[in-house]
Amino acid sequence: MKDKYSRLNLRRKFFTSAKSINALNGLPDSRNPRGESNGISQFKIQQVFRCKEYIWIDRHKFHDVGFQAHHKGSITDEEQVDPFSLVADELSILANRLRSMILTEIPKLGTAAEYFFKLGVEGKRFRPMVLLLMASSLTIGIPEVAADCLRKGLDEEQRLRQQRIAEITEMIHVASLLHDDVLDDADTRRGVGSLNFVMGNKLAVLAGDFLLSRASVALASLKNTEVVELLSKVLEHLVTGEIMQMTNTNEQRCSMEYYMQKTFYKTASLMANSCKAIALIAGQPAEVCMLAYDYGRNLGLAYQLVDDVLDFTGTTASLGKGSLSDIRQGIVTAPILFALEEFPQLHDVINRKFKKPGDIDLALEFLGKSDGIRKAKQLAAQHAGFAAFSVESFPPSESEYVKLCRKALIDLSEKVITRTK
Amino acid sequence: MKDKYSRLNLRRKFFTSAKSINALNGLPDSRNPRGESNGISQFKIQQVFRCKEYIWIDRHKFHDVGFQAHHKGSITDEEQVDPFSLVADELSILANRLRSMILTEIPKLGTAAEYFFKLGVEGKRFRPMVLLLMASSLTIGIPEVAADCLRKGLDEEQRLRQQRIAEITEMIHVASLLHDDVLDDADTRRGVGSLNFVMGNKLAVLAGDFLLSRASVALASLKNTEVVELLSKVLEHLVTGEIMQMTNTNEQRCSMEYYMQKTFYKTASLMANSCKAIALIAGQPAEVCMLAYDYGRNLGLAYQLVDDVLDFTGTTASLGKGSLSDIRQGIVTAPILFALEEFPQLHDVINRKFKKPGDIDLALEFLGKSDGIRKAKQLAAQHAGFAAFSVESFPPSESEYVKLCRKALIDLSEKVITRTK
Repeated sequence: MKDKYSRLNLRRKFFTSAKSINALNGLPDSRNPRGESNGISQFKIQQVFRCKEYIWIDRHKFHDVGFQAHHKGSITDEEQVDPFSLVADELSILANRLRSMILTEIPKLGTAAEYFFKLGVEGKRFRPMVLLLMASSLTIGIPEVAADCLRKGLDEEQRLRQQRIAEITEMIHVASLLHDDVLDDADTRRGVGSLNFVMGNKLAVLAGDFLLSRASVALASLKNTEVVELLSKVLEHLVTGEIMQMTNTNEQRCSMEYYMQKTFYKTASLMANSCKAIALIAGQPAEVCMLAYDYGRNLGLAYQLVDDVLDFTGTTASLGKGSLSDIRQGIVTAPILFALEEFPQLHDVINRKFKKPGDIDLALEFLGKSDGIRKAKQLAAQHAGFAAFSVESFPPSESEYVKLCRKALIDLSEKVITRTK
Repeated sequence: MKDKYSRLNLRRKFFTSAKSINALNGLPDSRNPRGESNGISQFKIQQVFRCKEYIWIDRHKFHDVGFQAHHKGSITDEEQVDPFSLVADELSILANRLRSMILTEIPKLGTAAEYFFKLGVEGKRFRPMVLLLMASSLTIGIPEVAADCLRKGLDEEQRLRQQRIAEITEMIHVASLLHDDVLDDADTRRGVGSLNFVMGNKLAVLAGDFLLSRASVALASLKNTEVVELLSKVLEHLVTGEIMQMTNTNEQRCSMEYYMQKTFYKTASLMANSCKAIALIAGQPAEVCMLAYDYGRNLGLAYQLVDDVLDFTGTTASLGKGSLSDIRQGIVTAPILFALEEFPQLHDVINRKFKKPGDIDLALEFLGKSDGIRKAKQLAAQHAGFAAFSVESFPPSESEYVKLCRKALIDLSEKVITRTK
């Protein structure tokens, strides 16, 4: 409990910290073009919660939002819910359906694609879990008994369609990993040989295309043009994010704005848009659909920011204990960008993409002297707070099951920032 | 004219030749499991015209169909229409729109993707041309003046949507070429260095994904669930065809049925389904949509069969003058499969995927002794005939422009089988 309490405390601290506001802005104060430090419009708050070109918020108003989020959260401040157990049965059904979808009449590719599902993603099933919890969290207006039936029977049309969204999301995610592996010439992923390394680029590209094509067919079968548009946009964002990472100018590499936009495209868009699709299929009004979108977006951003930190620290808090894979590939992430604000000398090293001998050590040295890691963690915590706030803003429900699922979503947003791997 | 006449004569010969029926069946008489040589149901005729597991037809009835097709065709037996000129303006608009769609805010990939459009496909623009001609051919019920306006103004909603289908089709086609290049580790395509060779697998996969994602977004924006389903199915077919080619048993490699199915998936499905999408958007009834589908399917099959022949003969009629790229990659195509019916000794060579020294020469020797090349050409001509027959079966139109476009589609089906490159 102590550990948990200190985490919550940490979260409060993040919300009320003035420094963390700079972190959120990703801009030093001097770059605030309007100097609006004492007020913020509703529009700007919305900007923070939604996908915008850049993040822009006033520190005082932000304090209030953060406080409110924390305050609401503390109402159900009890032992964390195991989110997996709440939808375990459905995740099993979903995994089996995914497998049978993959094991087509052509076993060789089935094996190849299943390989990825088995070793990597299926163990975590993070995305489908979030989406199923989101689906349950939005069964508003359904009496307790009906919600129970929904959970047990799983035969309702709407729920089946939401499960389909979860499947499609997972297929798109795995397909993008497969193609990214080819792009990166990666030889390992999650400790096991990546598919393209083990079986060649041929099969990795083909397996990715296979999953994308199955996702397209499944998506089309939903016959919902709005949902088709949302998930098509995700495909576009995934590619745009990859392009932004591959091809950028020195100025872009040093920009927090650019980094956050790329991170949204590469990681958060899939969660944001699929959460919105779940809400749409639940027949929720536009405001609730946007809250679902905001949850997915902020959860995705928090997740990626923590990933970026862990790439430097690994499971420990010490610098250089991570795999350092980003920096080795010349990719600049949040910790370095925050360090750059304190040590402009990092510009040269970044512009050289850390390619000169000693560049990586030099970057780590500056990072160690700076507040970079702490600020990146703060920014992650702020996005996790926004995610929690979105769920807390859902229309009230009397169903205990719905409440439990919402609690699980909020807990997940915290787990994302406290994870060590 | 003599040349053209002899081609038409050739076509008549194909339709009335008993041998050509075997060629169409892809099965020697002894393998006819039902022995139905004197009658054929309407269902079976439909099977020939549509995508089925295998091709099966009675020779006498087929003779009638063939004769009818030729007879109808001879009504407009005059100088061939230049199909390109009929839709040249629109093709230009379409190419520009494609280019501006590709030249996004990230120029590097724009250049990479445009590279492919410039050097290869844009020169021919075969698929968009067919689709725009199909669109014009199905402007039934619109008076002559309106059809003229349609051609000149190009601003009508329906026509814009059909142009969008043509664009999407082209994007899917180019994306599949880009990914196939990675799959095949191809170092050239159409005589120029393939994109993956010149710029690495990274960019080829990414450029393909980029086009697919743009195609998905464009498709979703049409907000037509049936069209989305048709073109999603195409994506699935392209992958299935590639898988069938990559992973097959000895028995499958020797099967004409398997070969034709793979050819449909890899080549004809895109034309078939996009032609159907054009008809759907034109608001045509189901029967006409199926005729449009049949045209695309048969044109695609004829195109690929001729490609398979040219891989052996090149621009000449002599064996071994082509690039022999299929056989070098161990891929068995129609000419070899027909030769196999006469020379079962080819089984061993095929099973070894032509890998033993001398295998390719041995295969060419058997092919030279056999009727393989001629039968493959016959089969191509038959599918071209079916394609023409589908267009001739469209509901009558009084519009000269519509008639001209239909004539162009029929002429194209003939050009496909008489082309030498």
